[in-house]
Order: sequence, then C-alpha cells, then structure tokens
Amino acid sequence: MARVLYPGSFDPVTNGHLDVLQRASRLFDEVIVAVAHHNSKQALLSVAQRVHLLKRSAGHLANVRITSFEGLLVNFAREQGAQAIIRGLRAVSDFEFEFQMALMNRSLQPELETLFLMPSEEYTYLSSRMVKEVSRLGGDVRRFVPQCVVEALSDPKAVPCD
Amino acid sequence: MARVLYPGSFDPVTNGHLDVLQRASRLFDEVIVAVAHHNSKQALLSVAQRVHLLKRSAGHLANVRITSFEGLLVNFAREQGAQAIIRGLRAVSDFEFEFQMALMNRSLQPELETLFLMPSEEYTYLSSRMVKEVSRLGGDVRRFVPQCVVEALSDPKAVPCD
Amino acid sequence: MARVLYPGSFDPVTNGHLDVLQRASRLFDEVIVAVAHHNSKQALLSVAQRVHLLKRSAGHLANVRITSFEGLLVNFAREQGAQAIIRGLRAVSDFEFEFQMALMNRSLQPELETLFLMPSEEYTYLSSRMVKEVSRLGGDVRRFVPQCVVEALSDPKAVPCD
Amino acid sequence: MARVLYPGSFDPVTNGHLDVLQRASRLFDEVIVAVAHHNSKQALLSVAQRVHLLKRSAGHLANVRITSFEGLLVNFAREQGAQAIIRGLRAVSDFEFEFQMALMNRSLQPELETLFLMPSEEYTYLSSRMVKEVSRLGGDVRRFVPQCVVEALSDPKAVPCD
Amino acid sequence: MARVLYPGSFDPVTNGHLDVLQRASRLFDEVIVAVAHHNSKQALLSVAQRVHLLKRSAGHLANVRITSFEGLLVNFAREQGAQAIIRGLRAVSDFEFEFQMALMNRSLQPELETLFLMPSEEYTYLSSRMVKEVSRLGGDVRRFVPQCVVEALSDPKAVPCD
Amino acid sequence: MARVLYPGSFDPVTNGHLDVLQRASRLFDEVIVAVAHHNSKQALLSVAQRVHLLKRSAGHLANVRITSFEGLLVNFAREQGAQAIIRGLRAVSDFEFEFQMALMNRSLQPELETLFLMPSEEYTYLSSRMVKEVSRLGGDVRRFVPQCVVEALSDPKAVPCD
Repeated sequence: MARVLYPGSFDPVTNGHLDVLQRASRLFDEVIVAVAHHNSKQALLSVAQRVHLLKRSAGHLANVRITSFEGLLVNFAREQGAQAIIRGLRAVSDFEFEFQMALMNRSLQPELETLFLMPSEEYTYLSSRMVKEVSRLGGDVRRFVPQCVVEALSDPKAVPCD
Repeated sequence: MARVLYPGSFDPVTNGHLDVLQRASRLFDEVIVAVAHHNSKQALLSVAQRVHLLKRSAGHLANVRITSFEGLLVNFAREQGAQAIIRGLRAVSDFEFEFQMALMNRSLQPELETLFLMPSEEYTYLSSRMVKEVSRLGGDVRRFVPQCVVEALSDPKAVPCD
Repeated sequence: MARVLYPGSFDPVTNGHLDVLQRASRLFDEVIVAVAHHNSKQALLSVAQRVHLLKRSAGHLANVRITSFEGLLVNFAREQGAQAIIRGLRAVSDFEFEFQMALMNRSLQPELETLFLMPSEEYTYLSSRMVKEVSRLGGDVRRFVPQCVVEALSDPKAVPCD
Repeated sequence: MARVLYPGSFDPVTNGHLDVLQRASRLFDEVIVAVAHHNSKQALLSVAQRVHLLKRSAGHLANVRITSFEGLLVNFAREQGAQAIIRGLRAVSDFEFEFQMALMNRSLQPELETLFLMPSEEYTYLSSRMVKEVSRLGGDVRRFVPQCVVEALSDPKAVPCD
Repeated sequence: MARVLYPGSFDPVTNGHLDVLQRASRLFDEVIVAVAHHNSKQALLSVAQRVHLLKRSAGHLANVRITSFEGLLVNFAREQGAQAIIRGLRAVSDFEFEFQMALMNRSLQPELETLFLMPSEEYTYLSSRMVKEVSRLGGDVRRFVPQCVVEALSDPKAVPCD
Repeated sequence: MARVLYPGSFDPVTNGHLDVLQRASRLFDEVIVAVAHHNSKQALLSVAQRVHLLKRSAGHLANVRITSFEGLLVNFAREQGAQAIIRGLRAVSDFEFEFQMALMNRSLQPELETLFLMPSEEYTYLSSRMVKEVSRLGGDVRRFVPQCVVEALSDPKAVPCD
C-alpha cells in the first residue's frame, strides 16, 4: 500500500491527531493530511492557518504531506491516488459517526477503504473542541497541543494565513 | 390495530424513510406521515415542500396519508386517533435519543405507544443531513433519495409550496 | 394487523415481560407468547413450567395465547400466521443483540417484521437472570415477578410440568 | 469527605437534577451547586435566574449552597475547597461526554475526583432541553420541574435577576 | 460520609482495581473491599486467596479494610453500616451492566447509593479476565498487576488460603 | 506496508470474514489469516478443520496465507514479521471488546498497530455463533457462508483434519 489520506477539521491540531498521524506514517508509504473546507461559523482558525500549524507540528515526518481540500472527500481521494482513508477512533460516539461517514463514502466510491486507528489511550478525552473551550476559559493546554498551537490559541490573529 | 403515526422532519425524505414507511404500510391499516413544524434555521425545504415531496414519493401507497403538524406530537396523535407512533431505528445514537423522546411522549400521554422498526441495513448510514451535505458538495445522491428529491436538492426553489 | 409473536426464554417471566405483553395486547388483535426450547444448562425451569407460569400470569388477557416452539423462530412465525415479532428493548446492549437477531430473521424470512416496544422505565434494570440471582441469594423478589413466580423460585420442583 | 461540587447549566433545574442533589446531600457534608456561565445563545434563563430557581427549589436542604461560577470548573473547585465533582449519569451518551469531561478535568487537576450518581430511573428521559421544548409547544411540564420553574417557563421575564 | 463498600470478584486484583481503591480511600473515611462469593467455575483463585492478595497489595492504605461476603450485597452493606457502594467505570459495556446492578440494588435497599469512579485511563483495557488470559498464554503481566499477583498467576497453589 | 495479520476463531469462516479478508488483500502486500488455538468447549470445528475451510474459501487470493497459532497473538505477529493486526468492526459491542484487546496488545508490543476495517453492511448481523445456531435449528445458511462451510455444518466430521 502506498498512499493514505487523513482528513479532518484540525481546528486546531491536537496531540491526539499527531499521535494518529505518527502511527499512520510508520505503516504507510505516504500520508496526506487534508484539512476540510467546511463553512462552519464555529471555526477558530482559517483553513490556511490550520494547514500552517499542521506543517509546523508534523513537518519532521518525511512521508507526510499536508494540504486542504474542497468538495467531496472521495473525489479528493481519487485525485490524489489514495487507496484508503485513515481515521482515529476514540469512543463509541466517534464510532457511530465515523461508521456512518465511512459507509457513505464507500457507497460513493466502493474501492476506497476506510481504516481506523486507535490513538494512545492518554488522548481518549482529547478533542479540538475541548482544547478550545479550556483555552478560552484560561486553562493551560500545553499538554494537549504542540507549542505552536498554544501560541495560536492565545493569539489566533498572529498565525500566518498565506 | 388501525392507525399509526410516522412523524419526522423529512428534510428531505430519503430512501431510508420510504423503506420504513413501506414496512409500516404493510403492517398497519393506516399510516399517517406527519412532517413536524420545527423552527430550525437549518431546514433546506419548507414544510409544504417536504409534504409535496413525500406525496410524490409515497403517493402510490394506498393506506398512507401525508400531512404536517404543529405543537406537541402527542396532541396531534390524539386528534388523529392514532394508537401508536412509528420510528425507524438505525444505530445506538438513534436509540438513546428515540428512547428519551418515547419515554417523554409516554409520560405526556400514557396510552400512546411508540413502535420501532428497522430500515433495511443498506440504509444504516443514510440520513437527511448526510444527503444534504453530499448534494451540497456536488456528489451524486441518486441512490439515496427518490428522483423528485434529487431535483429538489439541485434546485430547492423549484419545488411547489402551495 | 392481526397477529404478532412475542418469543423469549421467560425463565422465569418477569413483570417487565408482562408489561411488554400488556402493551402489545392493546395494540394487536392477537399476541402469541412463545417460549423457546433452547438446550441451555443454565435454565432454572423447564419449558413446560415456564409456559405454566406465563399462563397463570397472563391468562386474564383475552387476546393472548401462550405456547412454546422448537426450531427456527421464523418457521414457527410462518406456521402461526404471525405478521410480526414483538421484542422489548431496554438498553443499548439489548439493542445491538436484538438488531442482529432481527436482521438475521429478516434475512431468513423477509416479509416478517420485528417491532420493538419499550417496557416501563421502572423495569429497565429487570432481567430473568438478575431475578434468579437475587432469589438464589435470599433476596425478596416480590416486586419483580408475579406471585406464582415468587413461589416457583423458592421451590421450582413444585411447579407442574404437564 | 466534606465538600463536593455539583456543576451544570440548570437552564432550568429539573426534578432529575433535584433528585441527584438530594442523593448527594445525604452522602456528603456539603454540596455546592454551581451554575456555569456559558455564553450560549440557546439559554432561556440568565445565570442569575437559574440560581434564583435553584434556591427556591433546593433551599430546604440544609447542607446545600447554590452559586454560579465563571472560568474553569477545576479552578472554581479548588477555590471552594471541594474534593470531588458530582455528576448525574443517565444514559450511554451522557456517559461518554461525562467521561471525556472528567478525564480532562483530572488532567487539569489530578487530585479532584469526579463521582457519578444515578438519578431515579423515572428521570431517565428528562433533560432541561426536552422540558423547554415541551413547554414551548404548550405541553404540561408540572411533573418534570418544580412549581417555580413551571411559572418561569410560562413567563421567563417575571423571574427576578438580582 | 464515613464508610463505603467496594465489592467485586478480584480474581485477581489488578492495578486498575488498586487505582480505584486508592482514589476511594482519599475521598472517604473508610473503604471496605469485599470479595464476593460467587460459585463460578471459572474462578482461578479461591475467595480466601483473593483476600490474601488484596491484603498484600492494599495493606498500606490505613483506612482500607479487606474482607469477603456471601449473600446479597445490599444486606452485607447494611450489616457493615456502609452508606454507599463504590464501582469503577471504564467503558460503555461496564456502564450498562453496572447501572442495571445499581438500579436493582437501589430497588432492594433505597437508601444505599452507588457511586461510580473512573480509573486512570491507562487502565481502560485492563480486566482480571484479560490478565488471566495473557498470563495463561505466557505473556508478561508485570505492568498490569502487583508483584504478589504475578507470582500467584504463575503458581496459584502457592497462595495461602487460610 | 508489507504484511498484516488477520487473527480470529473462524469457527466457521463466514462471508463477513471473507469480505474483510478481500478488502485487506487489496490494501496490503500480504495478509496472514491466523486461526487461534483457544481451548473452548463450544468450538464446533477443530483448528485444523477451520484452517482447511479457510483455505478452500480464500485459496484464490494470491497474497493471502492461512495458518494457525498458539500462545500470545503479539508474539506470533512478531515471529511472522507482521506490522499490523487487522480486525473487522461491525457494532458498538464489537468496538469495545476490540479496543480493549487492541490496547492490551499495544501494551504488550507497542510497535504493533491494530487496524480496523468495516465489512459490507449486509454482513452487520453475521457472526459464526449465529450461523451455527441457525444451522443447528435447520435453517438455510447458504447466503451466510461459502459452500464448503454449508457442507461442514451439516456434517462436521466429514471435514478433513490433516
């Protein structure tokens, strides 16, 4: 197997995402991390900012490429020549939503598989939403996200958007 | 048993809804499909449009009547003389929400039962929300919804609202 | 709809089973309660004894018939002319097992539906297994089972088997 | 053990919350009920109003104190000298969210435990959200909330805010 | 609150049990660990052996007492003057079984509460059953159980039974 | 990635197992199917028989090898040079057990990942246990298992054990 896609919102990337990414990068020839363009109002960071922080956090992984996409995930996967989608699974609620997504994606493109990985159990409780909430309330998020994200959370406007 | 009520948002009706409806129409004398007036901003179609599409999709079922309602479901059920509410169950997350609703409805009107049916397993992953999302991103939804809904999704304003 | 089947082990029947049965008897023309012949070693009561206790507990319901069956449930349902199977659902773990069974049964006989009812929430925690365990440890089970079952639990051999 | 914290939105307090609170007040020396300042637009009542209704509903419990807090729950717990957080658990969906929160709080302040209690099973289906929905649709909520909340739901502006 | 009961099979005690026990011993005046006499054939160790290993593993906790019981847990709790039962919760499957047990116990003795604690997330996957399986297959269980249990697993007959 | 391990009981192999295996064989260079030697009394077929049926059912897949193993799965994986374990996930109850196993295996051998695949939704309800039960009761299992397993179920002793 050569190439897998790891899609997500990554608003922002957490240590849980990075744990899944490192595991995938050891198993597959190439991992494409793809930030989805969702027109959500609840986003803290722009897609360009999220890509920037992912690049700073995971730039040291040789076989990892970081990008963004619009439109259907299955179309992007086909364009990129990815054979499978990678998703992290933490809890039952994840499980059901992820399965629904994966079955829908399989229906749209039968030859594209979805593979689920477990992050380390120390990240079971970690989500971008919770990191943003703790940060907003003044809590210390240094053990949950890489240093560049700590800074981004305290001053989102300082993150480059190029 | 004569008459059951199948309530929902149906924004829009999917093949999963139609599968549940066909099963119910074989089991009961009369099935009233009832579109709920929720004041949600996320609705794609008006209640009148959803009723219109349901009529076009399920008009061939002799013992099915399609309508809409405002206010409490249990009050509408009583007015209609329905002995039970019909709901489709797909997954654990459905299950918990549906049970909470059913217990609340039983508390409000003890003699009204809720009966749960399973749609065909090929519709496990199907939801109105996911169909709208795939359609919005340019995906082909023809296997998920009836033809009149395919057209409605590509041009919602063309659906009559009378 | 005329006739539904309510199958189970009923080793022994509990107030939760009777609650589901009463709900079903109000909704359908005829309810056939069917004790399954499983060759389990953990059974406390013989099939004949379980039928006997069901008859004593639910004999006052005019449209309820109590019997037992061997072989595949779907074959028995066809012989009896039942249009649907009735099952009580209490919890998520019930849900998954019941769905697996219902999908298997649908696969074996597509025209036979399974309908799920909720027992009253006061019976959420009630199961034949737990009643037997509490009884074995000397606990008072009078609020969980009908009086004839209380007696059967204290002296199973006294229950007639004919 | 002396002092525990029972945090929540309480928008509005329900009989399910009061059931958990009474159970906690029998077990612990002091229970501090703490209304969280979330900047949600979906709130029906102001934080001051929710505190007011909690005081009217639970003022008869000698060892219960009612207040509100801003910022991180774990910081407020430390300021108040609370050894544990109390949460009610009703269903699987509760369970996962509550565990995620509890693990996050433990990560932020390891010596603060979270203890889960079960409300009475008659409150399994009860939530503030469902009470507001039923009330909005004209349903009778007298069995779900204390009398002062019934009145507040029919005329929120009449609840004092001082 | 003075006294709580921590019941279980403890066949054998694991680091997950000890984690829950240490948390409980910090919160409550006295914790009684109570090994249940179940007549299961799958037990590896006798009740006396399990008590012995618990004493060796948790003997350093001043306010912890270790014993065993027969009959109904709620009766033993009453005899011991315990106000609450302590249980560790790890996963959804735990949750449902534990809730069923706790509701049954509340039904049998309404004034006895059940409080749920979370073990550290590193013990999410740990169970006595899995430890026995790994040990039986020759795996190294030193990170899962205390040293005296490692020895007991390799030679159960050497554990004193008096 | 070169080599993955697909372990299981396969008593007997079902079309659901074969669906997962075909998906895995398209994604990875080599898939080793490994029948576990569990000393369960409930086994219908010997390990040699299960291997035989797997070979007949999946012999046409060029990059699939079928074998059996004793002892710890992680040790066998290391001996075989497998980088990951493959498991099929169908339902929430699967999910929790599989995660517990996967976390235990990761704890025993951190560099060995577990990857989860979804079988086709038409196999959601399929399990070896249910196939054996339906077959025992005289049901037709031809749509659930390959032809050689249909024959083995009707006459287990005729399956070669070499």
